Amino acid sequence: MLAEILDEALARVRPSEEEERHMKAVAREVIEKVDAEARKSGLDVYAIHVGSTARGTWLRGKKDIDIFLMFPADTPRERLEEDGLRLAKAISPMHEERYAEHPYVTASYKGLDVDLVPCYRVKDAAHIQSAVDRSPFHNEYVMRHIDGLHDQVRLLKQFTRGAGVYGSELRTQGFSGYLCELLVIKYGSFMGVVQHGANFRPGTIIDIEGLVNGIEHKEPLVVIDPVDPGRNVAAALSEQKLCEFIDACRRFIASPSLDHFFPPPYVPIKKGELEGLLASRGTLLIAVTFKTPDVVEDTLYPQLRKAEASIVRLLERHEFKVYRSGVWSNGRSAVVLEMLVWRLPAIERHMGPPLQEREHSERFREKYPEAYVMGCRYAVDLPRRYENAADLIRDGLKSCGLGKHVAASIAGGFDILLNVDALELGPEFAAYLAQFLHAPRR
Amino acid sequence: MLAEILDEALARVRPSEEEERHMKAVAREVIEKVDAEARKSGLDVYAIHVGSTARGTWLRGKKDIDIFLMFPADTPRERLEEDGLRLAKAISPMHEERYAEHPYVTASYKGLDVDLVPCYRVKDAAHIQSAVDRSPFHNEYVMRHIDGLHDQVRLLKQFTRGAGVYGSELRTQGFSGYLCELLVIKYGSFMGVVQHGANFRPGTIIDIEGLVNGIEHKEPLVVIDPVDPGRNVAAALSEQKLCEFIDACRRFIASPSLDHFFPPPYVPIKKGELEGLLASRGTLLIAVTFKTPDVVEDTLYPQLRKAEASIVRLLERHEFKVYRSGVWSNGRSAVVLEMLVWRLPAIERHMGPPLQEREHSERFREKYPEAYVMGCRYAVDLPRRYENAADLIRDGLKSCGLGKHVAASIAGGFDILLNVDALELGPEFAAYLAQFLHAPRR
Repeated sequence: MLAEILDEALARVRPSEEEERHMKAVAREVIEKVDAEARKSGLDVYAIHVGSTARGTWLRGKKDIDIFLMFPADTPRERLEEDGLRLAKAISPMHEERYAEHPYVTASYKGLDVDLVPCYRVKDAAHIQSAVDRSPFHNEYVMRHIDGLHDQVRLLKQFTRGAGVYGSELRTQGFSGYLCELLVIKYGSFMGVVQHGANFRPGTIIDIEGLVNGIEHKEPLVVIDPVDPGRNVAAALSEQKLCEFIDACRRFIASPSLDHFFPPPYVPIKKGELEGLLASRGTLLIAVTFKTPDVVEDTLYPQLRKAEASIVRLLERHEFKVYRSGVWSNGRSAVVLEMLVWRLPAIERHMGPPLQEREHSERFREKYPEAYVMGCRYAVDLPRRYENAADLIRDGLKSCGLGKHVAASIAGGFDILLNVDALELGPEFAAYLAQFLHAPRR
Repeated sequence: MLAEILDEALARVRPSEEEERHMKAVAREVIEKVDAEARKSGLDVYAIHVGSTARGTWLRGKKDIDIFLMFPADTPRERLEEDGLRLAKAISPMHEERYAEHPYVTASYKGLDVDLVPCYRVKDAAHIQSAVDRSPFHNEYVMRHIDGLHDQVRLLKQFTRGAGVYGSELRTQGFSGYLCELLVIKYGSFMGVVQHGANFRPGTIIDIEGLVNGIEHKEPLVVIDPVDPGRNVAAALSEQKLCEFIDACRRFIASPSLDHFFPPPYVPIKKGELEGLLASRGTLLIAVTFKTPDVVEDTLYPQLRKAEASIVRLLERHEFKVYRSGVWSNGRSAVVLEMLVWRLPAIERHMGPPLQEREHSERFREKYPEAYVMGCRYAVDLPRRYENAADLIRDGLKSCGLGKHVAASIAGGFDILLNVDALELGPEFAAYLAQFLHAPRR
């Protein structure tokens, strides 16, 4: 039963022989081209193939491949960038310059997207000059230890994808591919990871090579990087995603199924269905929507989450009650709230200073002669400024704590959509809502 | 202006010469009778006049007077009680036996109620055998230090009465007469007390005789008893009442008026007025009412407050929101609530155990397969058990933490009255409501 499920999952994610052959051929050709170009220019530079396609742990259908251009460690930074880009661009006329920590090139080559990344060859990972310099060491470590477990890694990657926790970018805050590889190396198989993962907890520390005494990391899961013991490979993993992974492991152990690897997608919730769901829950749905700022997701998502937290705080400070909240982005962006309490009576209590601050408290009492004593402070019943959560957001959103780009977008205008009106945001949002409200997947 | 107000206030509370003469005559006669009766019985016992009527600090119209029967310190307890009661009852055929810490007699004599209290004469207040033995020392201390300030004490007593903080019994948790006397002795005049009182704060310590190093009391106001330095004369004063007193002092200083001594009474709120008030506030009034248990107020009020706190906790635990609460008793008793949130949506979140308690959390997930991960716990959306605060109280009241007598009364039945229906409790309650809702006094 379990074996059949794993076999079937693997059959779906393992690349075909044809795909594998093509991938390797492309890598070889690109490397040869770079090396020839380097020799021609008299540069002491060579190319290597890194990443999951080099390690044989990629999932079927992958269309991109990483080639690193290895420069001597003493190359001046400007030379590395200039020569690196020139070498890279020589691969194919179809290329695009990009920028992460430093510039790189994405070139289109025989149907694949080849990332060509200039980096320094340093003697060990403790001496890297930028984060990309670490990749060749990761590559080497995994290749030396993976020991036939390639397919086990593939299973784990697909499993975390199915659980919604695959990807260490800030949108997901989940598991990176390298982290999946290390876990399989540590626990010997996909099921080994699942069995141990079911017992992970915030605070779990994994130190495969036993390199570290006294861990200083504070992240929920700490996996010591075997090539750079000061680094936590799981640094990007949020507590929420760690716990979702633990949950997924336990559910899989309790009742293994292919659905864990390939869950049915959330289908867009229909208007009538959403109406019925909200009526039966009795809650109010609020979507605060605005134009998505033109920034990369790693910049966008932290700002969306900051906006979410600010709006929730604003509401709770005014005695409204948020049942759950989330963020969504695709074309437009939205902070989404399911409200438990969104209307309040016409009065609110305004607390004055403690009586022992005599001057302050006397000024308060003069301002509000009807003030009364409550505990050790003055208090007064005033007309409530916001009886309605939407009104509060409308007036208060712009002065909320917001990230720079989200603030600029909101300054340009925003909408507050209630209940089914939120479906205006389109079918992608409707699918998000189904997930947000824990509606059945089908 | 101020002087005229104080003169007028005093004119209203100072006993007439006739009243004073009568009070003294009665005391003298009762003492003579007791002493004669004691001699006749061969008892080494004599009577003394104590309390405010002895000290000349009582308020006009007082109808009771305290006479203590002083027994030798080595009298056996049973003898003290038996002989004490016999002596006391000889004063008047119209008497009634009562019981506080030990038995005493209230006798009707020439239009006054005379409390005749047997006690031990001990060498100092540190050697008392029961609380009543302290009274003669208080008496002596005040008489020796009052020094013509009798009327200043009367002003202070009436002022605290006007502020609603006079009386150290558990119903009020305010200022005792002895505390008023000590404050006047300390600060030299009524206005001296008011000026200093305006600067009191929780934690204020007053040690008139400088008897104590390092105070261990934790009450909001500490006034060291000059005759028994281990005792806090203000032990019964609640923080709320202390702060109401501070507020009253400040308001009086800011605009002195006779109203502070004799505030207009709260008039019963009328149905239409209550309807209008609640409609404009938008809140819900709930009165939980039951038969008043047949116990003294010092037993009743702590139990009412305990019931109040339990009901508030019950409501808040279920996510309802209480704006203010209070207790009332007179014939029937009531816990009264003004609600900010009294209806909630049809769902509620039920939090499961932390994921790291694997067994517990797996049992939770098996019970609720639709459970989701929230932070480090499982959570599930369930139909809310109580969408309505009144339903919750109806079902949950009997299992609330309640004092013994209130619990018994509630077990016999209770009503939940909403909004104007609460006026069923009668005009006394309607006057309480006016105060509770901070309605204008007239």
